[in-house]
Amino acid sequence: MFSSSKRAFSLCYFTTTTKTTTISSIVIIFLTLISYGYGQATYHYETKEFEVPLDHFNFVLNTSFKLRYLINDSYVDKQNVKSPLFFYTGNEGDIETFAKNTGFMWELAQSYRACVVFAEHRYYGKSLPFGNMTFNATQPLNYGYLSVEQVLEDFADLIQDLQEKNKYGPVIAFGGSYGGMLSAWFRMKYPHLVYGALAASAPVRQFDGLTSCDIFSRIITSIFANSFKDGTCSANIRKSWDLFKQLSASDEGKKKLNEAFVFCDAIKVEDDLNKFMDYLEDVYANLAMANYPYANDFLSPLPPYPVRQFCSYLQTLETGDKLLNAMKQAINVYFNFTGAAKCLDYKSAFDPNSIGGDAWEIQTCNQMVMPMCSTPETMFRVKEWNFKEYTENCMKKFHVKPKLNDITLRYGGKNVRDISNIIFSNGLLDPWSGGGVLQTDNEAIHIIIIPEGAHHLDLRASNPNDPRSVIQARQREKNIIGKWIEEYRW
Amino acid sequence: MFSSSKRAFSLCYFTTTTKTTTISSIVIIFLTLISYGYGQATYHYETKEFEVPLDHFNFVLNTSFKLRYLINDSYVDKQNVKSPLFFYTGNEGDIETFAKNTGFMWELAQSYRACVVFAEHRYYGKSLPFGNMTFNATQPLNYGYLSVEQVLEDFADLIQDLQEKNKYGPVIAFGGSYGGMLSAWFRMKYPHLVYGALAASAPVRQFDGLTSCDIFSRIITSIFANSFKDGTCSANIRKSWDLFKQLSASDEGKKKLNEAFVFCDAIKVEDDLNKFMDYLEDVYANLAMANYPYANDFLSPLPPYPVRQFCSYLQTLETGDKLLNAMKQAINVYFNFTGAAKCLDYKSAFDPNSIGGDAWEIQTCNQMVMPMCSTPETMFRVKEWNFKEYTENCMKKFHVKPKLNDITLRYGGKNVRDISNIIFSNGLLDPWSGGGVLQTDNEAIHIIIIPEGAHHLDLRASNPNDPRSVIQARQREKNIIGKWIEEYRW
Repeated sequence: MFSSSKRAFSLCYFTTTTKTTTISSIVIIFLTLISYGYGQATYHYETKEFEVPLDHFNFVLNTSFKLRYLINDSYVDKQNVKSPLFFYTGNEGDIETFAKNTGFMWELAQSYRACVVFAEHRYYGKSLPFGNMTFNATQPLNYGYLSVEQVLEDFADLIQDLQEKNKYGPVIAFGGSYGGMLSAWFRMKYPHLVYGALAASAPVRQFDGLTSCDIFSRIITSIFANSFKDGTCSANIRKSWDLFKQLSASDEGKKKLNEAFVFCDAIKVEDDLNKFMDYLEDVYANLAMANYPYANDFLSPLPPYPVRQFCSYLQTLETGDKLLNAMKQAINVYFNFTGAAKCLDYKSAFDPNSIGGDAWEIQTCNQMVMPMCSTPETMFRVKEWNFKEYTENCMKKFHVKPKLNDITLRYGGKNVRDISNIIFSNGLLDPWSGGGVLQTDNEAIHIIIIPEGAHHLDLRASNPNDPRSVIQARQREKNIIGKWIEEYRW
Repeated sequence: MFSSSKRAFSLCYFTTTTKTTTISSIVIIFLTLISYGYGQATYHYETKEFEVPLDHFNFVLNTSFKLRYLINDSYVDKQNVKSPLFFYTGNEGDIETFAKNTGFMWELAQSYRACVVFAEHRYYGKSLPFGNMTFNATQPLNYGYLSVEQVLEDFADLIQDLQEKNKYGPVIAFGGSYGGMLSAWFRMKYPHLVYGALAASAPVRQFDGLTSCDIFSRIITSIFANSFKDGTCSANIRKSWDLFKQLSASDEGKKKLNEAFVFCDAIKVEDDLNKFMDYLEDVYANLAMANYPYANDFLSPLPPYPVRQFCSYLQTLETGDKLLNAMKQAINVYFNFTGAAKCLDYKSAFDPNSIGGDAWEIQTCNQMVMPMCSTPETMFRVKEWNFKEYTENCMKKFHVKPKLNDITLRYGGKNVRDISNIIFSNGLLDPWSGGGVLQTDNEAIHIIIIPEGAHHLDLRASNPNDPRSVIQARQREKNIIGKWIEEYRW
């Protein structure tokens, strides 16, 4: 689900029992951090459109629509051997955001004289099959063509078209997070089109029966707990839920709460409080994923290592007003680091008019069912994974019945025995690493662990503040991809 | 397209310029020969149904239908380790026919104590999603869900269900001809579900740009030419077309023609003649494919090595009445070997009411576009491959626009670099071998050539008349599959 910010986007799985929020899940954020405090490179590309069938699997239906993609072939050595094609498998958002935030792919393209393509994911950005009516729940069939399989077919068609016109060498797929899942699956299912894939922070195992549903909240808790080595930060957060509930139970408490946080919409009813607490859980996840070594401008501008900054206000165990005050200062790191925000807009993420937001929620309601829960050991509110309720919410909101095991059935779950030429990279500071491929005895795939890495940090442009482990990871990725290009036979 | 015989079926691609036959292609026959003159084994199974989504790629549409499958788990060692599951990927016909004519799979199941499943292909046999309305061209969307991808998803769902209930060991897919293509593609796309595949006589390269369009007619010509070592048989056939045309040009000639062949419907107009000649081309393809070493009961009962028998009447070059008479005797081998047929029903294959026939024709009009042509060097009438005309016919008849490169784009065409655990077996006496995988430098797949084999002879039950090469092929297939079962880890 998109946040209200147009410059960044998040996929939000809300685990909530509020009445207005219907999708039971947790926050996922595909970071599109724009570094600042460090000169950001500008990437140039042409914006093009490519006509794709609405339904690749139905030959009677002849409807088509235009998929957007970005292309830059200026690095290509046109006098020499066939250049590789670096193909970003766009994920849930405007493709330009990915082009701007995948600096490593641009750097590598220059080294290997590759053509660069960023392909937009259908139903996002400007690739909406039915324009304004795309997500209209009165016409659910309009979003019936939103599935991973259709997307991969879009990409396959586009690659075929590009190859026919230009005769590139090996195609290497790149993607981060859900885009990384797509790049891995693309290589798995279309090895004849895609020679290799870099799947960065791709939680391909974040599905039922493969990974514990509390792994995401446990990793976040651990990141916050270890920020100042004594666990006070996560302990304070864990205690804060009761404090907020207590305060909101009385008029006096509510007043205190509203004054402390300067909400754009004051908390009046229980539903408001729940939305605020959902928002906070999103914030914690976002801070963990965006826990980069340099300042960045995400939902709101963030300092380097924002979790540490956040936790610096929670170094001692607090209660009552002191806890309220400490939480206020800590949360300011996220929502008002620069001091520019007038008020805390905790409702923005729930805006039903947010652009493109429905698409990801629909995907979580059809195939992308990633069970989420939190246990008492975490700093989150305790929540069970309730697939029945999840299903009911999806049916009610989108008339779509989620398929719990769909992705595992199609893409193999834990079984990675027969796949090859995929790099699975994961940062251990990334809550999504729990659902990643972290070990294998298949020598044809590559596992890269980045101890100091947050969510697909390796895909981002080089930065002087990069930790050693991400520099090494990028070097290894570069070498593997170079080897693929070298060994590829035409 | 089904023939009028319920006991056997053929997929007919008609390369014809007649006005009534609209699909431009050539005959393919998926043999379901029932051996006679040798005690045929009877196979036992339970017939079951399994509910599958009509559209596996659309989560808004919730329609489903029942897929038929046959199962026999009597060989399974229930006290011991997990038994393998032998899964026949049903092709274009009633699944019972395949169960009866895939004796090798039954024999192997006994050896390896496997559970045997034959899954019916949607839109064939009793697995019709819309009953009588399935192929109604006024409702073309009814057959919009007929595609290879939907079929593979049906099979994947069924395997998942069987595995959940029974915990089988490795799944080995089996298939012949188009069914062999499906078993190969099934392993390629779902390696986590299918551990290996035996793709017998699977022309996975019979697509545009991969194989010359005349290969099919050239191989048939070669088989007929070599039947008596001097090429007279094919030469006589090549000459016969002009003879038939000449005869049908006059009333007297037509009378002679009608009397010679004893047609059920006398040839009256040019369209009749064209249908008769189309029929003959089908007959030659059928004879080549069914050129088995023992008597068999196909469209009509056939003697052992029927091509040789056919050609025994065409050992010397003939013209005029002598050629007519020789052709009549030769064709009798096919249509009236036992003498039971009252007349030659050349129109039966064009019966628009033939059961299930439309399904294959629709498939050739959506994805399964296998270009066919015949050059003057062949014994067939010269025909060019004309995709424009082919498309027009498909549009006119089914409102479906064929996609020439669809299968190659999805399944990789000549690129078999990244696939494994597939046996591609081909008989050199089989016209479809030209589109098969006959060589590779990928050691993870197995190529088995059967010099004396017709169309997927290796899948049939053992027979005392089997040539040495098919016995050896089956032994090799057995060993490879045994190795897969042994090495499979749970």
